[in-house]
Amino acid sequence: MFYTDNRLQYPVRVEAPNPVFARALQQAIGGVEGEIRVAMQYFFQACGARGNPKFRDLLMNTAAEELGHIEMLATAVALNLEGAPLSLQEEAAQDRAVEAVLGGMNLKNLLSAGLSAMPVDSDGVPFDMSHIYASGNIAADMTANIAAESTGRTLAVRLYNMTDDAGMKDMLSYLIARDTMHQNQWMAALEELGGAQGAFPIPNSFPQDEEKQEFSYSFLGFQADGSEPVAGRWSEGTSIDGKGEFTAQPMQPQGEKPDLGAARPNSGAQSEQM
Amino acid sequence: MFYTDNRLQYPVRVEAPNPVFARALQQAIGGVEGEIRVAMQYFFQACGARGNPKFRDLLMNTAAEELGHIEMLATAVALNLEGAPLSLQEEAAQDRAVEAVLGGMNLKNLLSAGLSAMPVDSDGVPFDMSHIYASGNIAADMTANIAAESTGRTLAVRLYNMTDDAGMKDMLSYLIARDTMHQNQWMAALEELGGAQGAFPIPNSFPQDEEKQEFSYSFLGFQADGSEPVAGRWSEGTSIDGKGEFTAQPMQPQGEKPDLGAARPNSGAQSEQM
Amino acid sequence: MFYTDNRLQYPVRVEAPNPVFARALQQAIGGVEGEIRVAMQYFFQACGARGNPKFRDLLMNTAAEELGHIEMLATAVALNLEGAPLSLQEEAAQDRAVEAVLGGMNLKNLLSAGLSAMPVDSDGVPFDMSHIYASGNIAADMTANIAAESTGRTLAVRLYNMTDDAGMKDMLSYLIARDTMHQNQWMAALEELGGAQGAFPIPNSFPQDEEKQEFSYSFLGFQADGSEPVAGRWSEGTSIDGKGEFTAQPMQPQGEKPDLGAARPNSGAQSEQM
Amino acid sequence: MFYTDNRLQYPVRVEAPNPVFARALQQAIGGVEGEIRVAMQYFFQACGARGNPKFRDLLMNTAAEELGHIEMLATAVALNLEGAPLSLQEEAAQDRAVEAVLGGMNLKNLLSAGLSAMPVDSDGVPFDMSHIYASGNIAADMTANIAAESTGRTLAVRLYNMTDDAGMKDMLSYLIARDTMHQNQWMAALEELGGAQGAFPIPNSFPQDEEKQEFSYSFLGFQADGSEPVAGRWSEGTSIDGKGEFTAQPMQPQGEKPDLGAARPNSGAQSEQM
Amino acid sequence: MFYTDNRLQYPVRVEAPNPVFARALQQAIGGVEGEIRVAMQYFFQACGARGNPKFRDLLMNTAAEELGHIEMLATAVALNLEGAPLSLQEEAAQDRAVEAVLGGMNLKNLLSAGLSAMPVDSDGVPFDMSHIYASGNIAADMTANIAAESTGRTLAVRLYNMTDDAGMKDMLSYLIARDTMHQNQWMAALEELGGAQGAFPIPNSFPQDEEKQEFSYSFLGFQADGSEPVAGRWSEGTSIDGKGEFTAQPMQPQGEKPDLGAARPNSGAQSEQM
Amino acid sequence: MFYTDNRLQYPVRVEAPNPVFARALQQAIGGVEGEIRVAMQYFFQACGARGNPKFRDLLMNTAAEELGHIEMLATAVALNLEGAPLSLQEEAAQDRAVEAVLGGMNLKNLLSAGLSAMPVDSDGVPFDMSHIYASGNIAADMTANIAAESTGRTLAVRLYNMTDDAGMKDMLSYLIARDTMHQNQWMAALEELGGAQGAFPIPNSFPQDEEKQEFSYSFLGFQADGSEPVAGRWSEGTSIDGKGEFTAQPMQPQGEKPDLGAARPNSGAQSEQM
Repeated sequence: MFYTDNRLQYPVRVEAPNPVFARALQQAIGGVEGEIRVAMQYFFQACGARGNPKFRDLLMNTAAEELGHIEMLATAVALNLEGAPLSLQEEAAQDRAVEAVLGGMNLKNLLSAGLSAMPVDSDGVPFDMSHIYASGNIAADMTANIAAESTGRTLAVRLYNMTDDAGMKDMLSYLIARDTMHQNQWMAALEELGGAQGAFPIPNSFPQDEEKQEFSYSFLGFQADGSEPVAGRWSEGTSIDGKGEFTAQPMQPQGEKPDLGAARPNSGAQSEQM
Repeated sequence: MFYTDNRLQYPVRVEAPNPVFARALQQAIGGVEGEIRVAMQYFFQACGARGNPKFRDLLMNTAAEELGHIEMLATAVALNLEGAPLSLQEEAAQDRAVEAVLGGMNLKNLLSAGLSAMPVDSDGVPFDMSHIYASGNIAADMTANIAAESTGRTLAVRLYNMTDDAGMKDMLSYLIARDTMHQNQWMAALEELGGAQGAFPIPNSFPQDEEKQEFSYSFLGFQADGSEPVAGRWSEGTSIDGKGEFTAQPMQPQGEKPDLGAARPNSGAQSEQM
Repeated sequence: MFYTDNRLQYPVRVEAPNPVFARALQQAIGGVEGEIRVAMQYFFQACGARGNPKFRDLLMNTAAEELGHIEMLATAVALNLEGAPLSLQEEAAQDRAVEAVLGGMNLKNLLSAGLSAMPVDSDGVPFDMSHIYASGNIAADMTANIAAESTGRTLAVRLYNMTDDAGMKDMLSYLIARDTMHQNQWMAALEELGGAQGAFPIPNSFPQDEEKQEFSYSFLGFQADGSEPVAGRWSEGTSIDGKGEFTAQPMQPQGEKPDLGAARPNSGAQSEQM
Repeated sequence: MFYTDNRLQYPVRVEAPNPVFARALQQAIGGVEGEIRVAMQYFFQACGARGNPKFRDLLMNTAAEELGHIEMLATAVALNLEGAPLSLQEEAAQDRAVEAVLGGMNLKNLLSAGLSAMPVDSDGVPFDMSHIYASGNIAADMTANIAAESTGRTLAVRLYNMTDDAGMKDMLSYLIARDTMHQNQWMAALEELGGAQGAFPIPNSFPQDEEKQEFSYSFLGFQADGSEPVAGRWSEGTSIDGKGEFTAQPMQPQGEKPDLGAARPNSGAQSEQM
Repeated sequence: MFYTDNRLQYPVRVEAPNPVFARALQQAIGGVEGEIRVAMQYFFQACGARGNPKFRDLLMNTAAEELGHIEMLATAVALNLEGAPLSLQEEAAQDRAVEAVLGGMNLKNLLSAGLSAMPVDSDGVPFDMSHIYASGNIAADMTANIAAESTGRTLAVRLYNMTDDAGMKDMLSYLIARDTMHQNQWMAALEELGGAQGAFPIPNSFPQDEEKQEFSYSFLGFQADGSEPVAGRWSEGTSIDGKGEFTAQPMQPQGEKPDLGAARPNSGAQSEQM
Repeated sequence: MFYTDNRLQYPVRVEAPNPVFARALQQAIGGVEGEIRVAMQYFFQACGARGNPKFRDLLMNTAAEELGHIEMLATAVALNLEGAPLSLQEEAAQDRAVEAVLGGMNLKNLLSAGLSAMPVDSDGVPFDMSHIYASGNIAADMTANIAAESTGRTLAVRLYNMTDDAGMKDMLSYLIARDTMHQNQWMAALEELGGAQGAFPIPNSFPQDEEKQEFSYSFLGFQADGSEPVAGRWSEGTSIDGKGEFTAQPMQPQGEKPDLGAARPNSGAQSEQM
């Protein structure tokens, strides 16, 4: 169950409203690296967490935090939209400037939302909840969370670099710090789950002798001339999960040319396919 | 540039065609954890790789491998659909069984594709390319790849457990092995990029003294009663990136209640909002 | 800012787990009439509320309530999935029954989520945040909310009628009651905003003498034979907003056949179009 | 069955073509508040209307009207795109202006449609037919229609305010008038269905003694500090549907902490979860 | 402008309602090969038709026809849903049969639409208007229409083969006939536009001496072993457009390995990429 | 199985990077007429090809070619993004120009992808794999391919006309040439399948005496005034498939007004509908 207090988690201040920056901030709300994604991802992971209940608590707690981040960013978008042009003037010179701003906005922020934030990305594409990765495997979930916070912090840094509004830089420096923590937090949770050698390969509950083991630690090459693939840590030495030895080799096709045979009558194919 | 030889990377054999299992296999083609996703993700990451060119090579090489996996799975889907019912008979008893199978299929596999595979998931939802994470940050990309292979192997294991067709189990044991390798491969690449202490927090190019550092390594609690959040590796000790010390504390709102003020005339709001 | 206490808003109890009912419940989570929709809709309306701040408070308060409903339903889905088949047996007779259940499930609940809830509807289609109507016009928002709760209660009633599990019926009787309240709550808010005669036509800030008033209260007919359109409250009497008198008439085209003329050179049209 | 006469329902005239305004107009075609939405919504509601056949007639009649509105707007978009730049010149000064216009357009209007309209919104996002609300409950449908026309008129007013092209203002003044009528029309239909006290709570066919009535007319508070939620018409007095008395109270969790227990073997979870 | 007469274009009769067949029919409404697609495609092509106005008339006329087809199919879906189970009984034996039917339905047809049709496909996926191909090039549009009617008739044939309900077979035999006509109709229009030798390559307004002509009529091979690609009509003889001579050859890469160089500072990449 | 050699199929050179043109090029990657579409369409058609195996070879060979085109275009996008502004300066004059460029970009190319290409169209909308038409009918597939290459070449021509960068014009002149070939190639394949008179109506395996033949070659008119529809090649003469004679006539409704009757109890309708 959730509660609110109507206050912002961290101050949101905009010194010089900028509708184009409002558009950029939308990516941090409704982009695939944005805050709706992490809020809902942790929420659904929590709801499906089986096993040790501490992970449910951990996830739901941080889901609550992320909901507050959406609220902060939505406020920042609305404040940046203050002063956006509402009309296209006829006078040519001014027209250009106004059109540049209107053209650079998500027009929906004006037309659909009346100068407010929306659950869309910086190009106006609505967030699609298929991006909520909640796998039922707690370790896989942690890898998805590390990835989400890594792309999330990258986005926040790009936004920070894009603006020189002191209020916005202050807000973003807070969100960047939280992303630092969350990257570490989910890595810490993965460490509790056994780390690279205990948790991997994910899921660790599958008996590895049932996998086709000659291919389990081999870096396969798909170079057209049959040459060795590019060498690196991945082509020799003990595997990161500690359960094999890396090798490398060009791949040869193991199967034949597939043949589905003739189409069935009444299946809607051409006569020539039957 | 890409080439093909029309042969399968690994043999695909179906002993007892099962249209419901065909539907399940569709998740491994067009699901968010599926092979289109990894093929296209590595492809686009390769195309945008800046810096050391070995990562471009690594990524494009494995993109080629994954394209072959889509081909294998598409063949497996078509073979499992052989023998699917094409009509609904009137006789009540048989009707039930036929309807159970037809109802359990992705009907589009028949209606749209004539008993062939489609780029959709197990519920018939088309794959949406927004799931291609290619961030321009090579380390963030690696975390996305570890996550993709972790959920991917989890899916493959579930499919393996679902079937007792010897051919299908053989094919899946190969794909599971490759997922083992790929989890290790991307972790190895991340190690080349500095590992937990060198690569994190991602992006490592952002000067950490510009983030709001009092929040960078603090596990914040959002419990309604103000109690401490659940303790774990994430609440004390050195942070995983080695750059801070974990602490934990209940969060207090730092900001005020947001106030957007009155709506602007001509902005389409109600008179009462102005 | 949001808080949680990890307890459920209302008890969730499943006496006889039913994976097909789990699928049906998904509609109440990720369907367009579901709880993600109302939670996020009220949230974004609150974030964009200009004018009297009581509406922000009202909306955000109920957003918090709806988040708890998602949590309840996600728990109900997971409990109903307990006991779902994980494999397709070969023996024909049993196969049918197992396939009927597996076929009737959202397979992604198993394959992607490990027997947990997802933010998808009853056919496995992910929720798309374009359904969050937050218009910047507070009265328009209230109409969207009344509509959301009307379709939402209709859905809850259908789910209630579908199950005879006492636990599920109890949970749904709570959610139905809340939908009753919310329909009334948003109608009450609309009443505060002036009701039918004060708030409509929405937006009420547009000077009606600028609209083409001969068409403002006329029920136009588009019957191919030019006959009068079907009569009702909408074709005579004072208009509901009290600002006009309903009339009815067959419509005649007021405009001419549109003519875009020739295509421009270099615009990619055929030569014959230029 | 439908017929056409190739003439426009109302004249469409553009005095000064403006490609950025063309983009804005796209929202009225393919936006969630746009004309495709209402045309198809009334169409599908008509097709599924059970009970008194007058509602089928009413809905299908207005569906025909809305199809004509799409045609008008598509013509307006094409006319506004006349004169859009087809190329990016090299000369720096001109470049900026041309880029401002090209950048402000939906590029797809040029690249995909050759300077014509598309079924997309003002940011180029295609209309998604999940926005067609046709619930099988005629009263719920009416609420969805009132909401659609309320957001629709709000959008039309914003477009009217954005342009000073006399032709476009004339066309929009017609569409705004029709939205006025349609808001009233659907409210009139709802009145025929019993109005606030006869139709609500929707569906009115569900016996209210089966809902958990102590929560049916209570405004619940989710304030973190346990305080009373914001007061208003919704917190005291007779409910709008006339079937209860509004009360208000802070909510307490009624349920316990959810516990899904251990994960099942073979379900793809980590060993630690079993 | 559009008109309706509330009658069906062709009789719709269902002898034995079948909810699973209702689901299959949904593909013909909201599938990518369905009637919404062709109705809206012809509509938007008409709205954007430049040049000879007869094509606008041709397209809009057939758009009106297709709207009537959606109406017919929506009626057929609703009639097939009559008798669908509304509840899941507890008794095990019957449970199986009921679940088979419920599981085989689009549950949304019940839960969202109250036993009516929806603008979704046979797996419940909503139609996405990006499938409306209206290119501004009248010949390209004709090819899209031939393709739409070819997949459309294939679908209708599969549905015809799936049912033995005499009413449904009658309705489908009408729709199949119309698809026959429409395939021919759009081919006839393409013939008016010059046919294979006059209209192709599309767009025919581009001066072919500006294309890289040594690749214009050469069938390139991408076989990994450098062998000749499969021979056929496409590898020798005069090209179908009559403007070249087919040849065939293995392709060699003409370009170098791409090198994007270092990432820019402040672009959010890792330090190692700069 | 697929291979790569890391070299580009054709040289990609950008003389004057232009971020707005990068956005336009995105349409050729992730637009519905773009290269992902054809690569994946030919790939899935190949995987489902039944009957003569030469078509599988033909399709998979060209799928490999198109993968190389995506790689070329992704490189072109990244090169055009070099020099894109990373920040919004405060100085007013420069601000306008910078905002014009930033506003004209797909912001996600910067924010999500760090100045690299993405699988999205020119308005930032991700490619949706429902556009992969692979019908199981080889002739229908060929019509879809002709359509794809016709809209594809139209797009390439528009891009060619938009730029005067010599490198980009060179690359596009290659892609336009390949589209010329592919239009011809698929028409040649259709000729092998019998051409207009052998392959049509598609599917040619359906016995035409089962279709309602009086409607098979009749151009039906839906003019509101009952007049004859527009005449052309489609209204008289032998049909293009050679199997009928074209006629033309106004259509009369053949069916009655549909009547679904009363709603069922417990179906969630209003009481008045029952």
